[in-house]
Amino acid sequence: MIETPYLLFLGDAPDMLAAKVAIGIRDWRPEHAIGQIRLPGCGADLKLTDMTLAEAKEAGAKTLVIGVANRGGVISAAWKEVLIQALEMGYDIASGLHNLLRDEGDLVAAAQTHGCTLHDVRVPTVGYPIANGKKRTGKRCLAVGTDCSVGKMYTAMAMEAAMQERGMKATFRATGQTGILITGHGVPLDAVIADFMAGSIEYLTPDNDEDHWDLIEGQGSLFHVSYSGVTLALIHGGQPDALILCHEPTREHMRGLPEYTQPSLQQLRDTALPLAQVSNPACQVVGVSVNTQHMSEADAKAYLAEVEKEMGLPATDPYRFGSDKLVDALAAL
Amino acid sequence: MIETPYLLFLGDAPDMLAAKVAIGIRDWRPEHAIGQIRLPGCGADLKLTDMTLAEAKEAGAKTLVIGVANRGGVISAAWKEVLIQALEMGYDIASGLHNLLRDEGDLVAAAQTHGCTLHDVRVPTVGYPIANGKKRTGKRCLAVGTDCSVGKMYTAMAMEAAMQERGMKATFRATGQTGILITGHGVPLDAVIADFMAGSIEYLTPDNDEDHWDLIEGQGSLFHVSYSGVTLALIHGGQPDALILCHEPTREHMRGLPEYTQPSLQQLRDTALPLAQVSNPACQVVGVSVNTQHMSEADAKAYLAEVEKEMGLPATDPYRFGSDKLVDALAAL
Repeated sequence: MIETPYLLFLGDAPDMLAAKVAIGIRDWRPEHAIGQIRLPGCGADLKLTDMTLAEAKEAGAKTLVIGVANRGGVISAAWKEVLIQALEMGYDIASGLHNLLRDEGDLVAAAQTHGCTLHDVRVPTVGYPIANGKKRTGKRCLAVGTDCSVGKMYTAMAMEAAMQERGMKATFRATGQTGILITGHGVPLDAVIADFMAGSIEYLTPDNDEDHWDLIEGQGSLFHVSYSGVTLALIHGGQPDALILCHEPTREHMRGLPEYTQPSLQQLRDTALPLAQVSNPACQVVGVSVNTQHMSEADAKAYLAEVEKEMGLPATDPYRFGSDKLVDALAAL
Repeated sequence: MIETPYLLFLGDAPDMLAAKVAIGIRDWRPEHAIGQIRLPGCGADLKLTDMTLAEAKEAGAKTLVIGVANRGGVISAAWKEVLIQALEMGYDIASGLHNLLRDEGDLVAAAQTHGCTLHDVRVPTVGYPIANGKKRTGKRCLAVGTDCSVGKMYTAMAMEAAMQERGMKATFRATGQTGILITGHGVPLDAVIADFMAGSIEYLTPDNDEDHWDLIEGQGSLFHVSYSGVTLALIHGGQPDALILCHEPTREHMRGLPEYTQPSLQQLRDTALPLAQVSNPACQVVGVSVNTQHMSEADAKAYLAEVEKEMGLPATDPYRFGSDKLVDALAAL
């Protein structure tokens, strides 16, 4: 559990693309983002208040969150200076960087001296159980994709927000580094030991009220040969009552795999649903979420209408057109 | 790579059931098993020559393999005495125990002093890559099961032996602790970090001669919710040309999951084959391996005949009736 609220560290990010984590926090947990702190030359701007460490501390910030990717996988001297100052002032630091805070001797020493915590959210901190497959109370929805990075996290985040607005009980459950930094907790599934993957998802989505929905962040794709095992563990550990199919229609091949083409939405449905019904026989596919960012608005609308007709399911781009259709489908279950 | 030949340590095993690893080595790699060493009270006997450490060393033994499970997960003082003597005499030690040799300070110290290696085969020693899905040369066969522990390793071992007897090029590829101790190398897939599972199997089964078969040891089951992710990673990383369906017909529920029933062989085929064809469109299901140990010979034969008729595939119990039918099917591909 990472303590909130956060001060978002943008470092010397060259552009907004490098600030994906910080953008996610601002968009989905604005109440956690007390301000931003930038180094000279920073090309990213979240349009939050620029603050010094002292100002943010005064305003109540508890954790400095590294909201950017670092260049070349090295924590630079310029970053270090700020990070060590932050520890000296009592901040915890949270990071999803590949190179770990805990491997930096000076940060570890400063954290120990000042009683602060370094959160490396890439590394599991819990000894997860082996999955037992027992039916849990409460309801769960999982986004599954035709490919990686097609908008599964975004879909779950958007649905959580819309459901809470309607007064429904809904909790986003993070399974990746960005999601964990945004919400402050979760399971870094891609870093879990194989035998404990499904168990980690059971742990993440425990018994709950019968009318409560966990919105589980999807990972990988059953059709992406590098990560499909992670996806199946998520399906069987998550025991979803509802699946949302996620798709990005303009891709020419599977992400990172030039020899592989994406499956159709029909293939995804026909593969994912029987597998999900192994752990939850009542599971249904309830809707389609399409990432239309590379399509004109007219093309996007025409495409969504076509998908609705072909699949017999509500279809939307939750970023562009809202997630109401998907939430309606969950509410109707 | 564990150096052969082995002296098999049976310790104070109460019975043969506790000596599964040693039995596997004796049955499948008899040329590696130079003898056995037992402590007072040992109830297991492999019918190998009983040897002292000195006798086996003299006969050429390189590695002392712990061929039994230990009681209560503790390496006892009685075991320690033998293990330390072995290190003093220049033996390496190999173990698949849950508690690791490397966590025992006295063993580590003795190994360092005498220049010996401690092999904990539960722990990956290689930094595996992320799978790239590129088509590899050579052929691969994978056993997939309706459940865990239905005879997948045994099937692959038996096929390897029969193929080599026929002069075919065939290599068993171990993916679990027992298989690794039997063959001296492999990938402990259940202990690999999620993101690298499929990549570890690509690493294990690299490019090979066009007429060479890798016989990949299966793990888990697509229908076993605790481990299904491991199984799918194996299917996608393994890129199998041929699948063997493995089944144990007398089980009342999935192993360790009393709420789950086993799928039928038809369900297994219809689930596994399309998933395998994602990474290898040419993949075919070529045969069925049935573990008939709990059936009379007449019942076993009747069951196999029924399976052959229903599935339109050769079916055998490779332990009881040989694996020729399965090898014929591979040879015909």
